[in-house]
Amino acid sequence: MCRWLAYSGSPVLIEQLLYTPVHSLIDQSLHSQLGAETTNGDGFGIGWYDETRKPGIFRSIEPAWNDRNLHELARHIRSPVVFAHIRASSGSPVQQTNCHPFRHGRWLFAHNGFIDGYFDLRRDLLLAVDPEVFRGIEGTTDSELMFHLALSFGLDDEPLRALERMAGFVEETGRRHGIAEPLQMTVAVSDGERLYAARYASGPVVNSLFVSADASSVRALYPDDERFAPFSEESRAVVSEPLGDLPGVWHEVPAGSALVVQAGEDEHVSFTPRSPSA
Amino acid sequence: MCRWLAYSGSPVLIEQLLYTPVHSLIDQSLHSQLGAETTNGDGFGIGWYDETRKPGIFRSIEPAWNDRNLHELARHIRSPVVFAHIRASSGSPVQQTNCHPFRHGRWLFAHNGFIDGYFDLRRDLLLAVDPEVFRGIEGTTDSELMFHLALSFGLDDEPLRALERMAGFVEETGRRHGIAEPLQMTVAVSDGERLYAARYASGPVVNSLFVSADASSVRALYPDDERFAPFSEESRAVVSEPLGDLPGVWHEVPAGSALVVQAGEDEHVSFTPRSPSA
Amino acid sequence: MCRWLAYSGSPVLIEQLLYTPVHSLIDQSLHSQLGAETTNGDGFGIGWYDETRKPGIFRSIEPAWNDRNLHELARHIRSPVVFAHIRASSGSPVQQTNCHPFRHGRWLFAHNGFIDGYFDLRRDLLLAVDPEVFRGIEGTTDSELMFHLALSFGLDDEPLRALERMAGFVEETGRRHGIAEPLQMTVAVSDGERLYAARYASGPVVNSLFVSADASSVRALYPDDERFAPFSEESRAVVSEPLGDLPGVWHEVPAGSALVVQAGEDEHVSFTPRSPSA
Amino acid sequence: MCRWLAYSGSPVLIEQLLYTPVHSLIDQSLHSQLGAETTNGDGFGIGWYDETRKPGIFRSIEPAWNDRNLHELARHIRSPVVFAHIRASSGSPVQQTNCHPFRHGRWLFAHNGFIDGYFDLRRDLLLAVDPEVFRGIEGTTDSELMFHLALSFGLDDEPLRALERMAGFVEETGRRHGIAEPLQMTVAVSDGERLYAARYASGPVVNSLFVSADASSVRALYPDDERFAPFSEESRAVVSEPLGDLPGVWHEVPAGSALVVQAGEDEHVSFTPRSPSA
Repeated sequence: MCRWLAYSGSPVLIEQLLYTPVHSLIDQSLHSQLGAETTNGDGFGIGWYDETRKPGIFRSIEPAWNDRNLHELARHIRSPVVFAHIRASSGSPVQQTNCHPFRHGRWLFAHNGFIDGYFDLRRDLLLAVDPEVFRGIEGTTDSELMFHLALSFGLDDEPLRALERMAGFVEETGRRHGIAEPLQMTVAVSDGERLYAARYASGPVVNSLFVSADASSVRALYPDDERFAPFSEESRAVVSEPLGDLPGVWHEVPAGSALVVQAGEDEHVSFTPRSPSA
Repeated sequence: MCRWLAYSGSPVLIEQLLYTPVHSLIDQSLHSQLGAETTNGDGFGIGWYDETRKPGIFRSIEPAWNDRNLHELARHIRSPVVFAHIRASSGSPVQQTNCHPFRHGRWLFAHNGFIDGYFDLRRDLLLAVDPEVFRGIEGTTDSELMFHLALSFGLDDEPLRALERMAGFVEETGRRHGIAEPLQMTVAVSDGERLYAARYASGPVVNSLFVSADASSVRALYPDDERFAPFSEESRAVVSEPLGDLPGVWHEVPAGSALVVQAGEDEHVSFTPRSPSA
Repeated sequence: MCRWLAYSGSPVLIEQLLYTPVHSLIDQSLHSQLGAETTNGDGFGIGWYDETRKPGIFRSIEPAWNDRNLHELARHIRSPVVFAHIRASSGSPVQQTNCHPFRHGRWLFAHNGFIDGYFDLRRDLLLAVDPEVFRGIEGTTDSELMFHLALSFGLDDEPLRALERMAGFVEETGRRHGIAEPLQMTVAVSDGERLYAARYASGPVVNSLFVSADASSVRALYPDDERFAPFSEESRAVVSEPLGDLPGVWHEVPAGSALVVQAGEDEHVSFTPRSPSA
Repeated sequence: MCRWLAYSGSPVLIEQLLYTPVHSLIDQSLHSQLGAETTNGDGFGIGWYDETRKPGIFRSIEPAWNDRNLHELARHIRSPVVFAHIRASSGSPVQQTNCHPFRHGRWLFAHNGFIDGYFDLRRDLLLAVDPEVFRGIEGTTDSELMFHLALSFGLDDEPLRALERMAGFVEETGRRHGIAEPLQMTVAVSDGERLYAARYASGPVVNSLFVSADASSVRALYPDDERFAPFSEESRAVVSEPLGDLPGVWHEVPAGSALVVQAGEDEHVSFTPRSPSA
């Protein structure tokens, strides 16, 4: 289990997202409140978009809380679309290639959750990855494999539909192996233009997911809190768990639903796994 | 704040000390119950004696809980005198040279606690280190400096007295800088023959320290628990916090006292800081 | 390209193999003379057998030359069968799971060389791995995959034959993808009883491989060199490049041949790739 | 011995400095031609100035050549004043706090060379560091200590004079300990406005140092080479060894001299160690 954050909006210093909030992701790396584990110390990663062609990523196997390079970069990198992830391994090795976010071309991907029985399913799941996309797999996590399945099932053209096909395929494969509830996930994916997030589980236990209220509502609630000043109306943070406990700032994303953060109105839609062969 | 373990007795696989107990040091790295922090993930180290001249040490900046090399070595190294330490940095960088145990010739040293106002005192403390011993300082922790002060104040000849002088000097120096309660410590030090442990604090809050009961008492209490079978009568573990909650197995070491684990009867003596110049 | 050493014989401190020789593996990590690259600084690993069930392994992504933990362990671990490997990545990430030796049950495996066009062939090669063995693949190198192919093709029962089948399968697969000379390899594999080594390449360029002369011959040549004193008649080191330039100590292993180091007479046989389906 | 680069001029992507040149610093990390060692694989660091108050630094103990994070950051960070350093340890541990550049407030500092007999002199040198500055020392290298001596001797007000006092003090201290030729150095220091570089040695062997010609001269020599297009007239790179072998691009900085790269005319002055007490 892990914790992640995805932000889209006014360009911000990554420090404002990662270190400034009361219950920041750095705090969550030591004291997660809603995760399966309180400690998320098995590596971390950040990803960000700028004027260059591909998003940048910085990943490390150290715990986030005392990592000096992370704090340095967070003080110097400003970006309108930022991913951050702290990892608690559920069995795969602690290595950079297993740290989120994963990248393919313009796409970034982050995940919290797991595929139940993953080590039994892994070979079958790998075989379904498009051979062209296959060579991008460098690590051994279920998360990276889910990303490459989504890429194989049309992420470029229909992002949410491709995520639904990925979820459907994982469930099909799991059930063929006798796994009752194969999938547990909150995911974020972006091409730098839009931010897609989904919350889904095969069974009744669903990992938490929250999205921040629009900035004008937040500022109306907390007119004197200058931490909210830099954020435009369009700015949104999607997070595994709230970065603080101010009432009115964080809204739960319903289980079995997805979210598109974009210029203009955001979209809230249902999320239903479907067969990729359909 | 940190957690440590020092063992002297029948040769054991390090795994039996580090991984087998219910509330093992590995468990404490994620879920410490008596420490200032629940997580001790800022590096770790082990030290062990064998038939070679100097004890071996293995130290790493990774968290202990998922470190594969630590688990490998613990399964293959067998030793009669073992140190293990998991670190929670109180400000000094996470680097191997700041990981315990520290070594000088035949000596190993581990510490839990801190020198209050250390960064203000550090220069004055360093100046008191014997120039011959000085070149052994490779890191930047208060702990390593305390060890080198004790070496400068006669550790080779009078181990407990040297530790008392070190504590006295730290208190003198701290008070000269206006620090009310300069020292907080539990320490273990060994030359491979005897194991010395002390528990002391300048103020009323004193870090915890425990020693295991003799093996025959433990076996009398738990005749069916085969985990206790390999340990001889003389075997002792001294620990920051108990490795389990079986009644009768762990005895608290009183504050302001020290312990000598050795062949024959162990010694329990008082521990009183004193001026090195006295 | 990498450098490796495999030793079988009188129990020795690993330090005697890794640090004492003039052109030791540690020296080769900085100044290889026969490798494709002079520097082998992309991680290292050692493996050793003792009285426990599985061999131990210690692997790291640091360069070997300044790694303090490696030097510590080499001074304290004594073993009759030792593997050591220093890596120069040919494209796969620098991570522990890509460091040699690889282990499966009692088996250790080390490799120097490469599969040409590996990233194009990888998916097809993975598919041929036995599903039971598949879950042991944790990294992304051609080397680890070659080991798991050999395990799938009967390594337990017919070690050299299984290596030949692996080589045959890699060549078949490569040629199907239009690769003219798919394989370049020197490999070592052991179950702790016997040490198998093979030298083969699909084309005319074949990586170097040497085996040490028997100890009595070496001592006859250099009666005053006490470095040779501890080695029994049966002791052998197989190496990518000689650990020094004393005439008479190192014999080249012919290309297209294999070697079995064992109690009693060693065997020298030819090595011919063959189809696993034959 | 190490290799370093300091750049001042038109804002550039760090990649253009570190990866694009033929004999780039990354190439020098494996194949240095003018250094004491061909391999500089004991960690690296970069530093850069932007609109925030303090320069950013990113340091790592991995070799630079295969470090993915370094390459990522180099592709995304653009800056007008950049430091980069690759390390070959002369005895101090491989740890981030021993990697260059070092930072104090607005200052960055990088060094190639060594203090002869450093481990004998270290204590005396440390004692001369201003107590206020002392707490900034986090590592154990001669280089970091030289920087903090220069800070103690007036770097803020008279940069080159402070470097001369530092050099004078190191020589005085060394000679008092019987060291014939205590100092060997090329150093770069900057406050983000000016870049100061000096080349000096106590004896006849002096480490190499070069500065690039002004951009218009270079473009006149190589009108078709588009790598030179982005650089303004004022842009300068100061380097341990040239980044390529194009005639006319690199000028040697004379031994016993210093250089100030600044807006308008640069300065070339002599560099003469002097006593800090004078």
